[in-house]
Amino acid sequence: MVRPADLPTPSLLLDLPVLCANLAAMNGRMAAAGVTLRPHLKTAKCPEVAMLATEGQAGGITVSTVAEARGFAGHGFKDILYAVGAVPGKIEGLAPLVEKGARITLITDNVPMAEAVSARAAELGVTFDMLVEIDVGGHRAGVLPDGADLLPVARVIHEGPGTRLAGVMAHAGQSYHCRGTFEIRSVAWAEREGLVHAADRLREAGLPCPVVSGGSTPTAMLGEDFSGLTEMRPGVYMFMDVHQLMLGVCKAGDLALSVLASVIGHNRHSGHLLLDAGALALSKDVSAQELKPEVGYGVVCDLSGRPLPNLFVSDMAQEHGLCTVHDESLWDRLPIGAKVRIMPNHACMTAACFDAYHVLDKGEVVDKWKRFGGW
Amino acid sequence: MVRPADLPTPSLLLDLPVLCANLAAMNGRMAAAGVTLRPHLKTAKCPEVAMLATEGQAGGITVSTVAEARGFAGHGFKDILYAVGAVPGKIEGLAPLVEKGARITLITDNVPMAEAVSARAAELGVTFDMLVEIDVGGHRAGVLPDGADLLPVARVIHEGPGTRLAGVMAHAGQSYHCRGTFEIRSVAWAEREGLVHAADRLREAGLPCPVVSGGSTPTAMLGEDFSGLTEMRPGVYMFMDVHQLMLGVCKAGDLALSVLASVIGHNRHSGHLLLDAGALALSKDVSAQELKPEVGYGVVCDLSGRPLPNLFVSDMAQEHGLCTVHDESLWDRLPIGAKVRIMPNHACMTAACFDAYHVLDKGEVVDKWKRFGGW
Repeated sequence: MVRPADLPTPSLLLDLPVLCANLAAMNGRMAAAGVTLRPHLKTAKCPEVAMLATEGQAGGITVSTVAEARGFAGHGFKDILYAVGAVPGKIEGLAPLVEKGARITLITDNVPMAEAVSARAAELGVTFDMLVEIDVGGHRAGVLPDGADLLPVARVIHEGPGTRLAGVMAHAGQSYHCRGTFEIRSVAWAEREGLVHAADRLREAGLPCPVVSGGSTPTAMLGEDFSGLTEMRPGVYMFMDVHQLMLGVCKAGDLALSVLASVIGHNRHSGHLLLDAGALALSKDVSAQELKPEVGYGVVCDLSGRPLPNLFVSDMAQEHGLCTVHDESLWDRLPIGAKVRIMPNHACMTAACFDAYHVLDKGEVVDKWKRFGGW
Repeated sequence: MVRPADLPTPSLLLDLPVLCANLAAMNGRMAAAGVTLRPHLKTAKCPEVAMLATEGQAGGITVSTVAEARGFAGHGFKDILYAVGAVPGKIEGLAPLVEKGARITLITDNVPMAEAVSARAAELGVTFDMLVEIDVGGHRAGVLPDGADLLPVARVIHEGPGTRLAGVMAHAGQSYHCRGTFEIRSVAWAEREGLVHAADRLREAGLPCPVVSGGSTPTAMLGEDFSGLTEMRPGVYMFMDVHQLMLGVCKAGDLALSVLASVIGHNRHSGHLLLDAGALALSKDVSAQELKPEVGYGVVCDLSGRPLPNLFVSDMAQEHGLCTVHDESLWDRLPIGAKVRIMPNHACMTAACFDAYHVLDKGEVVDKWKRFGGW
C-alpha cells in the first residue's frame, strides 16, 4: 500500500472521494436546473476525470487547447467545444477530428476570423459548428449582447462555407473578482440575461440559435435562474481551490487538489520554513490574495489535509516555498524532512505544473492519472 | 525554410546568436575574474544549451531538480551541483549518477539534514560532495556567515559516512529586488564578503574548503571583485529577460527568449488586443512589475523582436493575453491573425511552460531543442 508520504516531492495529489462529491454536486445542480453540463476540462486535462465528470458517458466537453481536443477525442469524446477564439492556424489540428466523426464547436467574436476560419475549414473539406462569443461583463473577449457586431458575425458564420451557426456563448470571468455571494449572483444574472438577449436577437433576425452556453464555476454554483440557457461550462468546480473557497463558492472540505512537499529547511533567523515546492510546482497565481492577502501562494496542511495553524506559502523561488512561522510549535511539529500538503490558490494553474495526478482514496494512493500538456 | 510566422502558437523561440553572445560575455567576464563559471541550468533545462554554455566541454553545471541532474548526466555532464537543500528522499535518484562516475555536490544549512543525508548516502554505498549554504542577505536558506550554526553543520558533513565537505555556497537572491546597479554592486560585495568570511572560518577550524561558490546573474554581471571565490553560478544570463533589463543587468538586444503568439481578437469596446498566449504560456511572474508596473506580464514585439509602441500583456487568463492598446495605429498594424513575439518578465518561469525551444538564427527556425520538465 502506497501512502502520500511515500511519494517523491513535489507531487500532485487528487482526492478521489472529494472529486466525486464535487462532480455529483454540479451534476445534480445542473440537472435540477434543466441545463446540460458541458464541463470545461482546462483544469483537469485528464481523460479519467473527464469520464467521471460526464458520468461515464464521454459526453460533451469544453477545452482550451487543440492538444486537449486531440487528447480527449483520442479517448472517445466526440462533442468538443474549443472555447478560445478561433484562428485559421488552429483549424489544421482540429479538422482531422471532424473527419473522424467528432463534432467540434469553435467560437469567435469578429467577422474577419469568422470568414477566415469558415474559408479554411471549407478548403480542408470539413464543417465546424461555431458560436458567437458574447461579452457579459468580463471584458475579455466577445461582442456586447446589445452591440452592433452580433448579427454581422452571426450571419458570416451562418452563410460561410465551412461553418454552421450553433448559437451563442459567454464566460462571466468577472465572477472571479467578486466580493461575496451576492455579487456572484449578480454576475450570474448578467451572464444569463446577456446570453438570452443575444440569442433572442439572433432568432428575431431569422438565424438559428440552438445553443445558449454560459459558464464559470462561481455562476454555475450560485446562479439561481438558468432559464433560456441550454448548457453551462464550469471547470474548476471539479477540484475547487483556495480562491473558490475565499469567494464563498465552496467549503474547505471540497478542495480535491493539493501539492505534496517536503520541509527542506528551518530558517530560524528569518522566521520561515522552507518547502521544496516553489513557483514551478504551485505557479505564481495570487488570485486568492485579492480576498485574503495572507494566503500567499497556498494554504499549508498536514498530510491528512487539515490546515496547519496560520501557515501559508508566503514567498517563493523557482524550487523553494517560504512559509512564515507565526506559531512557534510548528518548528517541532514540522521537522526538516517532514511532509505537508499545500492547497493551491488556483487549481488550473497548479495542476498545469505537473504531468500526472497521484489519486488518493482514504489516505491511500490508488492510481496515477496522466494529464495533457502543451498546445 | 521555416520562419517563426510558420510555427503554431503559442511557441517558445530562442534566438541563437543572442544566446551565444550572452554566453560568450559571461564566459569572458568570469575568465577575466579568474573564477570558474558553473552555469545554473534551471533556466535552460536543455542539453544543447548546457553544452554551449560550457564551451563544448560538458563542464561543471548547477541544477535545481533531480530530473535535471539525471537528464544532464545522461548527456555526459559529470560534475553537477544540485543547488536546493538536500533531503534523504532526493538522494535515491542521485545515487545512481554517483555510481556511474559523476561527481554530485549537494547543499545543506542544518545538522539534521547533513546527518540524515550522509547516513542515507552511506547506506546506498555512495559519497556526495556537500557545501554549506550561506545566507548572504537573501534570507531564503543558509546559515549566517558569522552564525553559530556554520561550524557544526560543516563538521557533520566532514565527519559523516556518506559526505565529503567541499566548501561553502550562497545565492544572493536579493539582487533581484535591487533598484539600480549601485545596489546590485552592494549585494555582490555582500555575497563575496559573506562567502569568504564563512570559508575563512572553516579553514581556521581546520576544515577543508576547496569550493567557494557564489552566484546570481545580477551579481555575476555587475560584481567588481570576485577574489576568494572559486566559482559563480548565474543562470538567467543565458536568455536574459525583461526583469534583468529593468534591473540594468542587460540591454534590450540581449533578450534571447520570446513567446510567439497570434492576435485572436480585437476587443474595441474594452480597448485591448487578445493574444493566444496566457498564463500557461507566459507564467504569472510579475517580477519586472516591481520596477516598471506597466510591463504587466511581458513586452509585445513584432516578429523581428522590436517592441511595439507601448504594448504589454496587461492582463491574462489561462489561454488569453490581454494587451491594452494605447497607440490606435496598432489596430491596423496587428489585425486579427497577426503574429507577435512576447519578451517575458522572467525567462526561467516562461521557458518552463514549454517542452522545447524553436531555435532561431537570422529570422529562420533552424532547430528544435527539448527541455527537461518535472522533478
